[in-house]
Amino acid sequence: MIATVVGVGLIGGSLALSLKEKGVANWIIGVDQNEDNLRKARELNIVDETASLEDAMSRSQLVILAIPVDAMLKLLPSILDKVKADHVVMDVGSTKDKLLQLVAGHPQRKRFVAAHPMAGTEYSGPEAAVRNLFTNKTMVLCDVKNSAEDALEIVENIVDKVGMRLVYMNAEEHDLHTAYVSHISHITSFALALTVLEKEKEQGRIFELASGGFESTVRLAKSSPDMWVPIFKHNRNNVLDVLEEHISQLQHMKQLLEEEDYDAFYKLIQKSNKIKKILK
Amino acid sequence: MIATVVGVGLIGGSLALSLKEKGVANWIIGVDQNEDNLRKARELNIVDETASLEDAMSRSQLVILAIPVDAMLKLLPSILDKVKADHVVMDVGSTKDKLLQLVAGHPQRKRFVAAHPMAGTEYSGPEAAVRNLFTNKTMVLCDVKNSAEDALEIVENIVDKVGMRLVYMNAEEHDLHTAYVSHISHITSFALALTVLEKEKEQGRIFELASGGFESTVRLAKSSPDMWVPIFKHNRNNVLDVLEEHISQLQHMKQLLEEEDYDAFYKLIQKSNKIKKILK
Repeated sequence: MIATVVGVGLIGGSLALSLKEKGVANWIIGVDQNEDNLRKARELNIVDETASLEDAMSRSQLVILAIPVDAMLKLLPSILDKVKADHVVMDVGSTKDKLLQLVAGHPQRKRFVAAHPMAGTEYSGPEAAVRNLFTNKTMVLCDVKNSAEDALEIVENIVDKVGMRLVYMNAEEHDLHTAYVSHISHITSFALALTVLEKEKEQGRIFELASGGFESTVRLAKSSPDMWVPIFKHNRNNVLDVLEEHISQLQHMKQLLEEEDYDAFYKLIQKSNKIKKILK
Repeated sequence: MIATVVGVGLIGGSLALSLKEKGVANWIIGVDQNEDNLRKARELNIVDETASLEDAMSRSQLVILAIPVDAMLKLLPSILDKVKADHVVMDVGSTKDKLLQLVAGHPQRKRFVAAHPMAGTEYSGPEAAVRNLFTNKTMVLCDVKNSAEDALEIVENIVDKVGMRLVYMNAEEHDLHTAYVSHISHITSFALALTVLEKEKEQGRIFELASGGFESTVRLAKSSPDMWVPIFKHNRNNVLDVLEEHISQLQHMKQLLEEEDYDAFYKLIQKSNKIKKILK
C-alpha cells in the first residue's frame, strides 16, 4: 500500500515508521507545509519521498492527517473533496467533536475514519518521531458508524498491526474523557512550570535540586503551543470544566493547610492514592 | 564500618543497599518501629540484622535517620543524647528548618549532619528500596558549619561513594527551594488525581485512555500520606506561598480560555516551555 502522511512531526513521523516496519505500507509519501521538516523526514528515512498534497493523494490508498487540530479543520473538507472511492482518509487529532460536525454532511464522509492514538511525548517535529511509540497503547476510533465498512477495516487492520488496543467512542464522549485524562495534565504541567519559573528566580537551584518527581510532573510543559493551543480551543468547554474542578481541589488543599487541618489533609492524600488501583 | 538505619523504607532501605554495595559499610543494622517492615528488610537482605535503637547505636559509627520528618523531630534529640564522641548521626529528611532549630542548642549538635537526597519514587516501604536510587542525584547538606569536621567528612565520603552530587545550603534556603521544586509537584499531583477521580466516574475510561503523559503527571499521587503530611506541616509557609502562586497561574489560564484569548495563551505556553533549558 502507498500511504501519504500529512504532517511529518512526532505523531505522523512515528506512525510512518511503524507502518513501514509492520509492512502495512511499502511506500510512504510525506506532505508538510514546513519544507525544513520535509527535508528532515526524508533524511531520517521517515518517508520515502515528498510531494505536493495533490500528487500524493492521487497515488495513495491511505491518507493520514497528523497536523494541529485547527489546521485539520481547514484541510479535511478539501481533502474529502478529492478522495477516490476506494481510498481512506484518517486523522490522528486530539479533539473530535468540531471536526466531525464540520464534515457531517460531506458527500465523501464515509471515506473518513476519525482516530486518536493515546500516545505521544513532550517533543515535536520529525526528529521526535520514534519507532514503537504506539505499541500497547490505545487507539480511539470515533463515530465509526459514519465510516464505510471497508474504510474502517483498513484502519482497524493498521491499529492491529501497529500493536494497539482499540476503543470505540462517539466524538462527544471522546472530547469529554480526553479533557479529564490528557488535556488537564498538560494544563497543570504548563502552570507548574510557570509557577516554578516565577518563584524560583535562582534557576540554577532548579537544575541542582530537580529530581525525578519534579521532572515527571513538569515534563509535559515542554509540549508545543502549536499543537496544544488549538486543542484547548476546540475542547474549551470540557477543559474549562475540569480546570475549574482542579482549581477547587487545590483551593481545598490550601484551605486545609491554612487551617492546619492535617487529619483532613491526610484523608485527601489517601483518597488520591486510589489512582494506584487504576494505573499500574 | 557498622551503620544503623532507622526506618528501613524506600529511602533508608535504598541507602542501606548502596552503602553495602559501595563498601562504605560492611554491616547494617536495621531499626524500625514497624516489625513487619523489619522482617521484610531482613528477608530482602537490605539489613544484616535488626536490633533495638539502643543496642544498634552502641555498636554503630554511623546512624542514619530515614523516618517521616515529624517522627524525626521526636527522635533526634534523644539520639543525640546518646551519641558517642566519634560517632555520626545523619538524617535524610525532606524539611530542615524545624529540625535544625530544635537541636540548635544541643551539646552534641556537632555530631549531626543534616542531609536530603533529592531522589525517591512514589512507592514506600522496604519492598520499594532499590539499588542505585541515588546515582547521579543531588545530596543537599544543610548548615554544615554546625557539624564537626570529622562528622562532615564521613558524610561527604558516603555521598561521594554513592555517586551523588553535593550541594550546600542553609536550612531556610533548603526549605524554600524544595517547596518550589519538590513539594509543589506532589500537591499538584495529589490534586490532579482527585480531580480526575472526581470528574471521571467511569474509571474504566481512565484505564483505557491514560497515556504516558497522564501517568507521568499523576504518578506522585501514589505517594504515602505518612511521609508527606509531616513535610507539608513542617514547610507550611513555603508550601502555601508556592501553592498560591500555582493556583493563580491556573486561574490566569482559565481566564484566558474563558475570554478566548488564544494569543496570550500561546505566549504563556511558550514561556512555560523555558523549563526545557533547565531540565534536560
